[in-house]
Amino acid sequence: MADLIARLAEVLPAEAVLTDHDLLASHRHDEADLCDSGTPAVVVRPRTTGQVADVLRIAAELHVPVVPQGARTGLAGAANAVDGAIVLSTTAMTAIREIDPVNRTAVVQPGVVNAVLAAEVARAGLRYPPDPGSWQTSTIGGNVATNAGGMCCVKYGVTAEYVLGLEVVLATGEVLRTGRRTAKGVAGYDLTRLFTGSEGTLGVITEVTLALRPPAEDALTLVAVFGSTAAAGRAVAAIAARGLSPSLLELLDRTHLRAIEAYRPMGLRTDARALLLAAADTGPRAPADLELIAEACLAAGAEEVFAATDATEAAALLEARRLAHAAMERLAAETYPQGIGALIIDDVAVPRARLAELLDGVEQIAERHGIPVGTVGHAGDGNMHPNIVVDRTDPAVLTRGRAVFNEIMELGLALGGTCTGEHGVGLLKREWLAREAGPVGMRVQRAIKDALDPAGLLNPGKIL
Amino acid sequence: MADLIARLAEVLPAEAVLTDHDLLASHRHDEADLCDSGTPAVVVRPRTTGQVADVLRIAAELHVPVVPQGARTGLAGAANAVDGAIVLSTTAMTAIREIDPVNRTAVVQPGVVNAVLAAEVARAGLRYPPDPGSWQTSTIGGNVATNAGGMCCVKYGVTAEYVLGLEVVLATGEVLRTGRRTAKGVAGYDLTRLFTGSEGTLGVITEVTLALRPPAEDALTLVAVFGSTAAAGRAVAAIAARGLSPSLLELLDRTHLRAIEAYRPMGLRTDARALLLAAADTGPRAPADLELIAEACLAAGAEEVFAATDATEAAALLEARRLAHAAMERLAAETYPQGIGALIIDDVAVPRARLAELLDGVEQIAERHGIPVGTVGHAGDGNMHPNIVVDRTDPAVLTRGRAVFNEIMELGLALGGTCTGEHGVGLLKREWLAREAGPVGMRVQRAIKDALDPAGLLNPGKIL
Repeated sequence: MADLIARLAEVLPAEAVLTDHDLLASHRHDEADLCDSGTPAVVVRPRTTGQVADVLRIAAELHVPVVPQGARTGLAGAANAVDGAIVLSTTAMTAIREIDPVNRTAVVQPGVVNAVLAAEVARAGLRYPPDPGSWQTSTIGGNVATNAGGMCCVKYGVTAEYVLGLEVVLATGEVLRTGRRTAKGVAGYDLTRLFTGSEGTLGVITEVTLALRPPAEDALTLVAVFGSTAAAGRAVAAIAARGLSPSLLELLDRTHLRAIEAYRPMGLRTDARALLLAAADTGPRAPADLELIAEACLAAGAEEVFAATDATEAAALLEARRLAHAAMERLAAETYPQGIGALIIDDVAVPRARLAELLDGVEQIAERHGIPVGTVGHAGDGNMHPNIVVDRTDPAVLTRGRAVFNEIMELGLALGGTCTGEHGVGLLKREWLAREAGPVGMRVQRAIKDALDPAGLLNPGKIL
Repeated sequence: MADLIARLAEVLPAEAVLTDHDLLASHRHDEADLCDSGTPAVVVRPRTTGQVADVLRIAAELHVPVVPQGARTGLAGAANAVDGAIVLSTTAMTAIREIDPVNRTAVVQPGVVNAVLAAEVARAGLRYPPDPGSWQTSTIGGNVATNAGGMCCVKYGVTAEYVLGLEVVLATGEVLRTGRRTAKGVAGYDLTRLFTGSEGTLGVITEVTLALRPPAEDALTLVAVFGSTAAAGRAVAAIAARGLSPSLLELLDRTHLRAIEAYRPMGLRTDARALLLAAADTGPRAPADLELIAEACLAAGAEEVFAATDATEAAALLEARRLAHAAMERLAAETYPQGIGALIIDDVAVPRARLAELLDGVEQIAERHGIPVGTVGHAGDGNMHPNIVVDRTDPAVLTRGRAVFNEIMELGLALGGTCTGEHGVGLLKREWLAREAGPVGMRVQRAIKDALDPAGLLNPGKIL
């Protein structure tokens, strides 16, 4: 290990090679702290592609695993360290190299924070839509490595749809350029998409070329109040069946409404079983579209629908949704005080038509196991996040919490869904990926991993 | 070979195993007839996934190459046979298994013709946007295998953006399922995208799950007349710079205008150096958007801009654009009569801001070599198709034609572009892919090919 640190110190400036014990401990894991993690031997913070390549060459030579990390806001343990690894943090690679309004492209280093890029792009009169829940702190590199989702996806798609090209350092230390800067391109296998969402298991992303869009339109927002989560699910199907394309379609269940209201009182309807938040950003047609969305909600059994009276009210509703994660963390901490409360955050997506069944099923599973579960998510995509509240110190509660988690996964797959809509596989969903992909699918994925990282040094144990 | 035919006859019905000489000859190549092609030993037309798997198992056992084919409308030789191969035609796999309006998905076999699917989807009140030039005859399987483009891409994207999941038979005969039926999903490596655009070199696509969209809005259309192709290119950059998103933005140069007018007289402005066709489908805002597009054209130097007065006139303009390929084929046949005329159809994409330079450069290259070149294409994507007119029997002309082709590729890459925007690599662009991807990129692609098809039996010689 002394050899490793000495070798790294030859290619990196002193401030980029970190071995302080507290710092190593703080880089053990992302937000999936219930997943396994190890203590890295060293954390490196390179600034350039050349430095990343040097690190990977040294790792290959000394046969040391490398765990790439962004802001560690992931929820599946994809950034969790293994003992003795080099943690390669991209957080010092923060250059925005280019924003081009005519080609509608941006070229950035991976450590640029999503919110920082979004603001810069807005200043150039354009928009970078992807808005994962972590957008104020998470990095573009992490967003790309996990193919992060968000609230915009229902109309504007996931991170991958904005990734035109990548620069990636391979396990050998070689630098690969994928993709293009053009609107279209079909030159060879789609390596850009292969690396996007590969969670650092195939290479380290060192530069991203992103597609941008014209600025967002002002959106009109409504809230629909439901007497059951299933009725809210039916409303989502009805909205899709009517050919509408809301720019936002989010669900909050009663557990979330109460947690958010407790966290920050804002007059939410805590007696409701579920709220749908919907928005239309179709310019002159937005009022009519919002009316059609309201009709679909009422036809599906909404007790009440009200439109935000102005932009301030609409922003407050969005803010309530954005607070869901923090509010549930608080709820877990209050349910099990003194640091023993925790959330197991699930991420399941089903075809929209099956959403009501999923929501009903989640409530039944939670009830059967006597474990509090709050569900929130991107209803328009059929992508739900059941948050399972557990005592991290009580093996019996943890076992029941994990049973809830597994039954929700089982239900999602039975409904034609996927085990992860946007959080990724990491460590948390490896067994479920194997279930979903099947033996042939796993063999193909393993063959690709082996072809690109035969020594298995890149983010070992993740995905596969 | 007798053994091969006998073995195939054991697993396929008699009418699905074809060895007639004329039929073998007609299945030698796609529309890239100037590329190398060989005579297959047999053409098989399976109807089921199980039959495809049987064929691939026999091929693996007897070590016979397999060349998948759809409608053979490709322009890069990706479907060209090699001597002694099994041509696996998917044209008998024509089932539309499902169209689901709530989930906005369709599940189809690969032999379904694009236009047939588009019509069925429209009957269900939805839209399948991808519209390659060949849409009336090409198959979804071929569209997916080549990641086909079209006129809709400028606003609605390429085929890949509509492919949610695939069923693929691997070189071993194993059946792989990729992707999902949900709006979002990040479970494992993106195998769906890896197979999309892989031109049959990694597996044979036997089922496709497609995303659908709400129906198209009526579009308003305009024509802008330019005194130079470069001015038309500048207009495209100006339209993008103003934040507009036309639903169509196509360019026709004078050679095309004259060829189309000769092919079917429709009163096109054959004195113009270039036309831009643009459309806006933004509903109530379309008239204003079209006005802004017109202003951008005039500011970039358009001599004249006129809007289609009604849907009939707009359809006629679109029809003129759709006739470009047939009209150029006719022009080649008339330039070099008695079957010796041919087109080398190029496909280059550059960042929009560089389109004017590309168009200027193509004209200079054509002039320098004294070879007629007509340019048409998807200007809004920066994706141009220079059509090089040659005498297929005259080696000197062919050499000059190929020099034009190569210089255009060279120019495209120098402008930050890609050697293929939508037609694919096939045989035609292999050397240019190697230039564009570089040695590391080629090694990675080769490693993936070897991982999935170690014996190299799937569509040998294509892409790599």
